[in-house]
Amino acid sequence: MEFNEKTIESDLIFDGRVVKLYKDSVELSTGQKTFREVVKHTGGVVILALKEDKVLLVKQFRYPMKEVMFELPAGKLEQGEDPFEAAKRELEEETGYCAKSWTDLGYVYTSPGYSDEKLYLYKAENLEYTYCHPDEGEIIQAFEYPLETVLSMVDSGEINDAKTLCALMRAKIKR
Amino acid sequence: MEFNEKTIESDLIFDGRVVKLYKDSVELSTGQKTFREVVKHTGGVVILALKEDKVLLVKQFRYPMKEVMFELPAGKLEQGEDPFEAAKRELEEETGYCAKSWTDLGYVYTSPGYSDEKLYLYKAENLEYTYCHPDEGEIIQAFEYPLETVLSMVDSGEINDAKTLCALMRAKIKR
Repeated sequence: MEFNEKTIESDLIFDGRVVKLYKDSVELSTGQKTFREVVKHTGGVVILALKEDKVLLVKQFRYPMKEVMFELPAGKLEQGEDPFEAAKRELEEETGYCAKSWTDLGYVYTSPGYSDEKLYLYKAENLEYTYCHPDEGEIIQAFEYPLETVLSMVDSGEINDAKTLCALMRAKIKR
Repeated sequence: MEFNEKTIESDLIFDGRVVKLYKDSVELSTGQKTFREVVKHTGGVVILALKEDKVLLVKQFRYPMKEVMFELPAGKLEQGEDPFEAAKRELEEETGYCAKSWTDLGYVYTSPGYSDEKLYLYKAENLEYTYCHPDEGEIIQAFEYPLETVLSMVDSGEINDAKTLCALMRAKIKR
């Protein structure tokens, strides 16, 4: 089976602060022509920060769903930023913690059907509190929950954030 | 801490086949005004189908990344479609299997920062082969891999699809 899809034309529909949107005309391997709607995103980082048996979570309003959600600390890459540097920056900005031990947990694509968003996952341990300084206009609150509680929140559906489940899965957290 | 964000104005930028894109003007709880770029998506379903100790995976070209990816069978909800009906439909379309036992694994938001995409997760067991009939223009190949292999592919980064990791996490699959 031949899987390639050839771009015939690519139209930039919207060039925003967070996403760019393209509508591409493509040719499938069967010769059939179709369109693809593609969101381009700079990518981001997700940090599973463990303070002994506690996990750092952040709570914030997520406008697309109009819901307050619990998630692992995370954030977008700045232009040209190295993912590991971004992970250190975001953990400190959102929770006030620096970590002495970091483990690379690979990456995931959040919505491969229509978006190129790539999230780099990290585990951070040996935490030390410095100070918390979220971005301008970022209203966010940090919490520390026992790992057992976080896993129960995943099971019960109180945590519904995909990247949070992905980082826990890759970290092979076991009960 | 007050988390609400009030919509002042909502502009539809693009109305596509897969996504709609809005640029909203919002007021934060601090009184500060800003913009939110929001992708609206109809949502979808993801099926962790277990055939004894084997997992059904599908392989397809993902245009946003220009990569061939392994993922759990999944698909978009049709207009007004019940998620459970969609899960049965997608499993059969993509793999040719029907399942006699279904378990609801809740839902996840794939990219809560900029998209309202909500994916409903299911576990399907007691599979019976009927026939495989992907959508027009959908080039997709189904595989059966031992669960152990799938978990190794998640660890090694051969599987990088967020929804696949989420369904495995929620199913509390253990080695």
